[in-house]
Amino acid sequence: MAENYGKLQDGKFYFPLRVYYEDTDAGGVVYYANYLKFAERARTEFVRALGVMQNQDLAKENPCAFVVRRCEIDYRSSAFLDDFLTVVTQIEQMGGVSLVVKQEVCRGEQILATLKVKVAYVSVKDKKILKLPPELNAWYAAATAADKKNSNNAAE
Amino acid sequence: MAENYGKLQDGKFYFPLRVYYEDTDAGGVVYYANYLKFAERARTEFVRALGVMQNQDLAKENPCAFVVRRCEIDYRSSAFLDDFLTVVTQIEQMGGVSLVVKQEVCRGEQILATLKVKVAYVSVKDKKILKLPPELNAWYAAATAADKKNSNNAAE
Amino acid sequence: MAENYGKLQDGKFYFPLRVYYEDTDAGGVVYYANYLKFAERARTEFVRALGVMQNQDLAKENPCAFVVRRCEIDYRSSAFLDDFLTVVTQIEQMGGVSLVVKQEVCRGEQILATLKVKVAYVSVKDKKILKLPPELNAWYAAATAADKKNSNNAAE
Amino acid sequence: MAENYGKLQDGKFYFPLRVYYEDTDAGGVVYYANYLKFAERARTEFVRALGVMQNQDLAKENPCAFVVRRCEIDYRSSAFLDDFLTVVTQIEQMGGVSLVVKQEVCRGEQILATLKVKVAYVSVKDKKILKLPPELNAWYAAATAADKKNSNNAAE
Repeated sequence: MAENYGKLQDGKFYFPLRVYYEDTDAGGVVYYANYLKFAERARTEFVRALGVMQNQDLAKENPCAFVVRRCEIDYRSSAFLDDFLTVVTQIEQMGGVSLVVKQEVCRGEQILATLKVKVAYVSVKDKKILKLPPELNAWYAAATAADKKNSNNAAE
Repeated sequence: MAENYGKLQDGKFYFPLRVYYEDTDAGGVVYYANYLKFAERARTEFVRALGVMQNQDLAKENPCAFVVRRCEIDYRSSAFLDDFLTVVTQIEQMGGVSLVVKQEVCRGEQILATLKVKVAYVSVKDKKILKLPPELNAWYAAATAADKKNSNNAAE
Repeated sequence: MAENYGKLQDGKFYFPLRVYYEDTDAGGVVYYANYLKFAERARTEFVRALGVMQNQDLAKENPCAFVVRRCEIDYRSSAFLDDFLTVVTQIEQMGGVSLVVKQEVCRGEQILATLKVKVAYVSVKDKKILKLPPELNAWYAAATAADKKNSNNAAE
Repeated sequence: MAENYGKLQDGKFYFPLRVYYEDTDAGGVVYYANYLKFAERARTEFVRALGVMQNQDLAKENPCAFVVRRCEIDYRSSAFLDDFLTVVTQIEQMGGVSLVVKQEVCRGEQILATLKVKVAYVSVKDKKILKLPPELNAWYAAATAADKKNSNNAAE
């Protein structure tokens, strides 16, 4: 069995997941806080796919981790038990010590929820803010360049 | 043992809670999605304190429930295992079919996280949007009036 | 992306999963209740792989679901953030209205936790106990027969 | 607001809790793994009430914690949204390096679920098994003595 979940494509990361009982509530739908779990699984696999190792193991030297500073989420439609969803993740904005990630939780073509998540990178032991891993900058630069080229081509 | 959690005071609702293992993650702090759980517990007890019965039991006639349309959360400081927290909830804006609730998760005087949550009231069976329960309007009117009076007194 | 998780092989069902932040606690390990979540995801995909549709959607006619009557779990070793685990599921005992499932949560060859879960099949609306889906009996018969044959071959 | 939850009485610890959306699933009942959360909250407040400080804060000197070795749970009846439950906890067996706790999750007089949980006490940093805190032995001795006395009185 493969140990990779999700795939990078066209400047976005696609992460699949199934809705289980644990994700739902007595309203018969996915509980509103659990979209943040889905989003974090997707971000984790996204940075793993980029080659960034997120590691908080305190036994290791100098562990560091991404932490969420701010999160906005719009709920448009409900997800249900057994749904097969995809979280589509892209970097919307790249700063020196934080980035903004846009994430869409989709069922097929339908967008169920949209998140904007501001994330920083910190040293676990002393909570010091660190420079973002260079893999993120490289990916963002490439994704943005490809996007511009596509726009230009489309415009011609 | 009392069956009431939290108290209404000065236009706000104060809801206490303890942080348990289930709330924390390997970073040693409360997991970011769990603040939304805390906030919902507080909103649930808030409307219960106002006399609004939220009831999704499908066996009952015409069950209705609050649903979250949008949520913004700013994370300022971490909460830790065993922390004793208070969620302070107030209505920030009252619309016809939705309201915006402001919630602060505090440890003593310190605000750890701030949420703005847009909530609607729906019929569980057909997901139809309903008028907000009148108890909420009454409370908001009273809280706003008291607030203005306080401001005026302070200004004198 | 495939919509199937896990595979049936040699009378067992192998379900892979990654450990995310949401699964861990401040002790730096997977929180003890979350093994039951892992086990349920595996059982759900197991019965799906067998062709049994578990469906609690109240809008559908006559929805039914598996419910857990009893669960035993032995914790041997901890699972950690980022671990890639496999839940190995097999039917240990087949009764008329309940079955016992044995599940092992493994990291590679190492068994981290062992569960025995007694499950019944019920009608969601009236909670009436139902006969188990025939797919389970068929699978159990085949798995047991193959197992005996293997034992006989091994004994020769 | 009091910072104490639950009370010690007659050799048992009574811990109250409310069922919120987060605790339920699409079956309309409390999700089976969440009883383990309820039980742990109760055990945590139980040892706190006995004066045992459980503290995993890695910044502190020599942190130690209770870890679960084994858990059995029988599910008898469902708990529902908004239910007000009590977890009744008592020490069933006291060993040198582990104890067995019996816990009942009740709605009024009705027992919804029964757990037996085997717990050890470990040093967080090196996972070494420690002697159990003396407060537990003292409590168990007193509870057992009172229980015998009551039995004798009842027999007279």
